[in-house]
Amino acid sequence: MRYCSHCGSADIALRVPEGDNRPRYVCAACGTIHYQNPKVVVGCLPEWDDRVLLCRRAIEPRHGLWTLPAGFLENAESIATGAARETLEEASARVHVGELYTVISLPYINQVYMMFRARLADLDFGPGPESLEVRLFREEEVPWEDLAFRTITRTLRNYFLDRRQGAFPLRLSTLERRPPVKSDLLGAG
Amino acid sequence: MRYCSHCGSADIALRVPEGDNRPRYVCAACGTIHYQNPKVVVGCLPEWDDRVLLCRRAIEPRHGLWTLPAGFLENAESIATGAARETLEEASARVHVGELYTVISLPYINQVYMMFRARLADLDFGPGPESLEVRLFREEEVPWEDLAFRTITRTLRNYFLDRRQGAFPLRLSTLERRPPVKSDLLGAG
Repeated sequence: MRYCSHCGSADIALRVPEGDNRPRYVCAACGTIHYQNPKVVVGCLPEWDDRVLLCRRAIEPRHGLWTLPAGFLENAESIATGAARETLEEASARVHVGELYTVISLPYINQVYMMFRARLADLDFGPGPESLEVRLFREEEVPWEDLAFRTITRTLRNYFLDRRQGAFPLRLSTLERRPPVKSDLLGAG
Repeated sequence: MRYCSHCGSADIALRVPEGDNRPRYVCAACGTIHYQNPKVVVGCLPEWDDRVLLCRRAIEPRHGLWTLPAGFLENAESIATGAARETLEEASARVHVGELYTVISLPYINQVYMMFRARLADLDFGPGPESLEVRLFREEEVPWEDLAFRTITRTLRNYFLDRRQGAFPLRLSTLERRPPVKSDLLGAG
């Protein structure tokens, strides 16, 4: 944030406002406090018999890798509506949204993932503009090494474990920043 | 949004960016798209034996009315951490955060409430700067007519019903804008 979106001033300071306890971007000219808060990512785990639907990403980040349909919750929609919309946009798939299944906080990137189990309404699906390919996978066919995000891996792993038990309790967790790999610590060469 | 927070230009238009499907604030000068998304409100339903902790609000909106400790999730925290922080700030109360209990979408004000059941660690609590008073209430003592928000009423009503059953399944719901009261429809006088 370099300019105040309310008055246009460049006199923005990161400081703790009176009565607050953490630094915010505050405009010295008009006094507006510019709060920044985490975003919600909503999505579905669409089922068809013993298979689940995955999309191969046509966009960055993680172009070419596989994901469950998910994206940022928009203003003016509920989380279940947002999850169904993302599934329609990315996989052209209509779903019956079921129970909320995983809720994963990602404090290091200011996101909260909320994934629903869902039932495909029919097999008339296909890639939307943000997907290269959309397919159904049995457990043994899931491309574990080519999944786009840790949230997706965690949701799918929980799902296949819980499916064996026949119960899907809400899975609440937090993912911290991934530790740097050894080559980063040692430096190049 | 009147000025671009990135370049300071006042040439901001509400339009659908290429490849998108809904209007965003877009800067005509530098091209920055200013996305706006719902905020998450996190809080606790703190229990002590058969009583629950409520706070009487010292701030607007709903000054003087009762609420469960809750507030906006901050960047860099998980939802459970945020719920505990709000409880400490508003009620000076330390809690053991338990299961996620109610998730309520409020699409008309772009919020998602996420309330946890929690167990008070001790009885050393009291009003923080945003509360006038903090008290424990038995079910029959809850000031139902003086609760601050519908999300709080719904969470408490579910809680006392579920407590009779001895089970607290996740309660997922949506609250729509409250319909106008009759006097609004008829006009004044």
